[in-house]
Amino acid sequence: MERPRHQGMAKNTYMRWRLPLVCLLWEVAMIVLFGVFVRFGAEADAHWEEEKREMNLTSDIENDFYFRYPSFQDVHVMIFVGFGFLMTFLKRYGFGAVGFNFLLAAFGIQWALLMQGWFHSFKNGKILIGVENLINADFCVGSVCIAFGAILGKTSPIQLLVMTLFQVTLFSVNEYILLNLLHVKDAGGSMTIHTFGAYFGLTVTRILYRPNLEQSKDKQGSVYHSDLFAMIGTLYLWMYWPSFNSAISDHGDAQHRSAINTYCSLAACVLTTMAFSSMLQKKGKLDMVHIQNATLAGGVAVGTSAEMMLTPYGSLIVGSISGIVSTVGYVYFTPFLESRLHIQDTCGIHNLHAMPGLIGGIVGAITAAAATEDVYGKEGFIKAFDFTGVYQTRTPSIQGGFQAAGIVVSLLMAFAGGAIVGGILKLPIWGDAAAENCFEDEVYWEVPEDEESDAYHMHNPDKPASP
Amino acid sequence: MERPRHQGMAKNTYMRWRLPLVCLLWEVAMIVLFGVFVRFGAEADAHWEEEKREMNLTSDIENDFYFRYPSFQDVHVMIFVGFGFLMTFLKRYGFGAVGFNFLLAAFGIQWALLMQGWFHSFKNGKILIGVENLINADFCVGSVCIAFGAILGKTSPIQLLVMTLFQVTLFSVNEYILLNLLHVKDAGGSMTIHTFGAYFGLTVTRILYRPNLEQSKDKQGSVYHSDLFAMIGTLYLWMYWPSFNSAISDHGDAQHRSAINTYCSLAACVLTTMAFSSMLQKKGKLDMVHIQNATLAGGVAVGTSAEMMLTPYGSLIVGSISGIVSTVGYVYFTPFLESRLHIQDTCGIHNLHAMPGLIGGIVGAITAAAATEDVYGKEGFIKAFDFTGVYQTRTPSIQGGFQAAGIVVSLLMAFAGGAIVGGILKLPIWGDAAAENCFEDEVYWEVPEDEESDAYHMHNPDKPASP
Amino acid sequence: MERPRHQGMAKNTYMRWRLPLVCLLWEVAMIVLFGVFVRFGAEADAHWEEEKREMNLTSDIENDFYFRYPSFQDVHVMIFVGFGFLMTFLKRYGFGAVGFNFLLAAFGIQWALLMQGWFHSFKNGKILIGVENLINADFCVGSVCIAFGAILGKTSPIQLLVMTLFQVTLFSVNEYILLNLLHVKDAGGSMTIHTFGAYFGLTVTRILYRPNLEQSKDKQGSVYHSDLFAMIGTLYLWMYWPSFNSAISDHGDAQHRSAINTYCSLAACVLTTMAFSSMLQKKGKLDMVHIQNATLAGGVAVGTSAEMMLTPYGSLIVGSISGIVSTVGYVYFTPFLESRLHIQDTCGIHNLHAMPGLIGGIVGAITAAAATEDVYGKEGFIKAFDFTGVYQTRTPSIQGGFQAAGIVVSLLMAFAGGAIVGGILKLPIWGDAAAENCFEDEVYWEVPEDEESDAYHMHNPDKPASP
Repeated sequence: MERPRHQGMAKNTYMRWRLPLVCLLWEVAMIVLFGVFVRFGAEADAHWEEEKREMNLTSDIENDFYFRYPSFQDVHVMIFVGFGFLMTFLKRYGFGAVGFNFLLAAFGIQWALLMQGWFHSFKNGKILIGVENLINADFCVGSVCIAFGAILGKTSPIQLLVMTLFQVTLFSVNEYILLNLLHVKDAGGSMTIHTFGAYFGLTVTRILYRPNLEQSKDKQGSVYHSDLFAMIGTLYLWMYWPSFNSAISDHGDAQHRSAINTYCSLAACVLTTMAFSSMLQKKGKLDMVHIQNATLAGGVAVGTSAEMMLTPYGSLIVGSISGIVSTVGYVYFTPFLESRLHIQDTCGIHNLHAMPGLIGGIVGAITAAAATEDVYGKEGFIKAFDFTGVYQTRTPSIQGGFQAAGIVVSLLMAFAGGAIVGGILKLPIWGDAAAENCFEDEVYWEVPEDEESDAYHMHNPDKPASP
Repeated sequence: MERPRHQGMAKNTYMRWRLPLVCLLWEVAMIVLFGVFVRFGAEADAHWEEEKREMNLTSDIENDFYFRYPSFQDVHVMIFVGFGFLMTFLKRYGFGAVGFNFLLAAFGIQWALLMQGWFHSFKNGKILIGVENLINADFCVGSVCIAFGAILGKTSPIQLLVMTLFQVTLFSVNEYILLNLLHVKDAGGSMTIHTFGAYFGLTVTRILYRPNLEQSKDKQGSVYHSDLFAMIGTLYLWMYWPSFNSAISDHGDAQHRSAINTYCSLAACVLTTMAFSSMLQKKGKLDMVHIQNATLAGGVAVGTSAEMMLTPYGSLIVGSISGIVSTVGYVYFTPFLESRLHIQDTCGIHNLHAMPGLIGGIVGAITAAAATEDVYGKEGFIKAFDFTGVYQTRTPSIQGGFQAAGIVVSLLMAFAGGAIVGGILKLPIWGDAAAENCFEDEVYWEVPEDEESDAYHMHNPDKPASP
Repeated sequence: MERPRHQGMAKNTYMRWRLPLVCLLWEVAMIVLFGVFVRFGAEADAHWEEEKREMNLTSDIENDFYFRYPSFQDVHVMIFVGFGFLMTFLKRYGFGAVGFNFLLAAFGIQWALLMQGWFHSFKNGKILIGVENLINADFCVGSVCIAFGAILGKTSPIQLLVMTLFQVTLFSVNEYILLNLLHVKDAGGSMTIHTFGAYFGLTVTRILYRPNLEQSKDKQGSVYHSDLFAMIGTLYLWMYWPSFNSAISDHGDAQHRSAINTYCSLAACVLTTMAFSSMLQKKGKLDMVHIQNATLAGGVAVGTSAEMMLTPYGSLIVGSISGIVSTVGYVYFTPFLESRLHIQDTCGIHNLHAMPGLIGGIVGAITAAAATEDVYGKEGFIKAFDFTGVYQTRTPSIQGGFQAAGIVVSLLMAFAGGAIVGGILKLPIWGDAAAENCFEDEVYWEVPEDEESDAYHMHNPDKPASP
């Protein structure tokens, strides 16, 4: 067990010119593209006073800002603190977890504003943005954060930026197909964010399979305080998930309902996770890996249906099941995926996002197919599913079919896209670390020579205790 | 000082079948009860469009969601991150602090939605829920988190679930008596949440008295970083307390006023806490225990009166006093309670919640009794105290009397309920740890064998330094 | 490398009477002044029902509370968790970072409510407060937190309180000159908060220059987990900065626009920071100091112009530049300032607040000068710059000139004020620590004797490993 800093590295992880070049060139590209395309939407533009008159709005409070900004901020926290800290559980990869997540998300939201803007907010040659665009950009980046979880500790920051570039692009295409062509509902993104993001990431990590990864096995675990840091991420994801699933729902009852359904689902999920965590362990002790992750499956699994009339007890059922599936996944599927399918999934996104995402898509399809005018009310029914214009003849069961098609499309996009992007990331030019240096911050970060790392030395019988 | 994992335990803490059984059975019960009783309220139901017309609302922004959702999210953070991390101060009980708090709160909010729903939102055989119910469920669970503070480190997760079941039930009964029968105002819960929760918890810990607890004294302290984790909890409680006290106040001025009063009270409380923390220590140094806890007493102590015309300087006075009382409590009362009354109060909830809660109830009674139409305005006076219907003849002084009665009822409910529940928890079937294994995560959690724990080994002269 | 607790201290840091005296006397003063002056504003007063009628408001949602409270809470988090945890990066000064920030901010907001109230909310002998006052008080204290960053680890809590008293006063005067006399726009405080706060702090630390500070050099670094704690601060500042810059902007489009501009600027800033952090380091590794600080420069640099029609691509440009300037500052300017100008800047506020603040002021002046009725619309133009009353004849270029004058005034106030206050703080009566005890919590705090500190001992060859 040699320490990376004292040995020549097998691979060239020197970032000094590559990383700055990518960051700066891409930021310049963003500036140029924003300059050509992006402008303020009507509600953020100084012409708002005129707009208000035209739209017969009597008060500034009708500005979409006040309907969505609090949810936006919660989503923002989920992306940067939630995902960032959730991944700090590794004993020596906290800087990379928080820092690279920060980097890829900061780039990703810019590129997502453009990509999603071209598809959804393009008018007279300009992308007109408002708070809903910011939320959607964060959502899109969420799918990249999920994929990051599968390859955490094994990739260079440049690889992450390259992956972000492609994944945001593919996400936007997939989202366009689902929302616009299939006319599918997916406000909380069970399909567009979780299913797509997770299977994309799993495909990438499969392509990037490292046969010798057990060389860094000693660093793949957590320490006591890193598990507590990770709980910060877990709790912020858990607490703000009702905002996530309701952030872009229709004003009024839909936002309200989404929040309630998600709250219920997540509460139930905690109990079944705790139950199975204890049950599946010989000594009956709880495992922080499950508590940190599987407790969140309930949020994923109501992502599509939360804004529908899923009902509170329906949410409890979905949350309960997803907690069980996710915990069982950590215990049985993750080892299987690694040993048999060569899918090395650092954070277990298969259990937290892939399977619950599929459940979410299916529950959404069923809930849509089961919708009736009686339950929704005549107006509510049309509003909830946007059965207007060319879609006014759609029936619930047809909608259910399209919802199911959305799952399939997301999966296909994820597998195909992940395979291509994985292939690109496999090129030996991106500066990823050798297997024995994975899960180690010292490869890409200036790391303080601290007490802990010295205490660490003492495990080595070959190494003297004092430096 | 033997390490628990290397010895046979004096008590059976094996959770493998007991914990899963309780979690799963109870969750099934929740699903059934939610299925029978819980439905969306009008503002979260898809019939909202019709409702809007009936209520002559012109905009979706009038949906209660937009009045209360931001406050709800702040309260949610207080319950899960605030209380959870506040209790991570112990050096080896961080998993239990955050994790068990997560478990009991996730169960508690479901049961509270039912209990409070039957009392307050029951209509035609159904409980109709909206964002205000979510806030109230979080509030109710807050009282359990408080009680958890007294028994932190000494109880099994099953005991905590059993306590939650009973405490939520008793909380709801007490709340119904206060709010509906006595027609008492208590928006921030000085009486219903803090006084009740704290004296309930103190009674339980008295019943569960452990004479040999000094056997785990070495684990009852903090380490440097655990004190910083606890400060995360402290600050989120402190910052969001204005949302806590205003979350369910009337729309408009009442919410606005509650937030301002709480902000002022908490600011003052910090200064007097710092003053007394330094003054009561021989070397004049500050004690993190006081900063982590007593700084919050100001929020508790204006819980009842924050929505009244307490005025900003009134809030400063209340906050100042409560910071002093709380800090003095940590220095003098806690040791006294433990040695003389056999009340082992791990987090010092007597100082943070019990005494400030009483102050809050009393200040509320005085503020109500002192109310005049001049200060509130004719309409404001009636609105602030709901002096309508059968209560339209109530005078401020009578209201003050009822407020005072609310304190007494809360105390009686807490003592009686705590005694009964403490008795139940004393049964030798719940898997609590032996005295020498208290405050130790390894009893119920898979704990990583980490550097720190190895550094820890070195305290043991009997144990070789390297594994 | 002797440990402070085992040696006689060169200076008298005994706080037992001095700190309590200052805290208690000042709190009493606050109570008296609040009692004389502070009352609820119309929107927080129980007379609100009558007010609503008078103002022809149809709904409680028109209460300013609902426009600003979510932003207020975000700002509140930035001040207490953001600044507090950002400064926990030092290995042995986490208690002081979070705790003293808590203390000074809690006092500062009270004093700021008074000072700013006298200048801006004084009516018939009373200061009438509402949620906007709370935000402004937090803003004012933000400038003190910034200055604290320069002297972190080198001052006693009493010095910090004295500095807060004076700095809040001077801040309020400067703010009055800028906003009321010069009629300058500065919603996000590039000039009033950042430029003023940073140059004030830098002047103070220059006056307090300690020639022997290298005696505590071993404590001026971070450890692995302290860098992660600091990232909590960084991320909350980064995520909530859109709320900071939009919190007191006009309702509607201005708040909306501010949030979007800030979001864009910050995203760009992360990329250029990462690029230059890697580029300026021989081994190409990233430095946590830069990621923790320079990524935030983008928020500072659009503080003045965010509510103007800066446009998203303009924000990207400003954010990109400020990230570069700030990172370069950490690498080259900070060492230069320390060695040549004797400015010891613990947190590098020159790079995070001073230079980006100047950029922000200049960008604001240019953006204002470039404003046209075409871009803003006739009404929007007048509303955005408040070109009403005596200012209705102001042209954009004149406004730009006044904006530039605002920068100069802020700088002069900062230098003059900082020099005076630095002189006061230099008096040998405030209990600051000797140079060899700087950056050490044990001077002012009860610090647990923990594992880590024992691991720490082992660096000392003179000290036996077991206690």
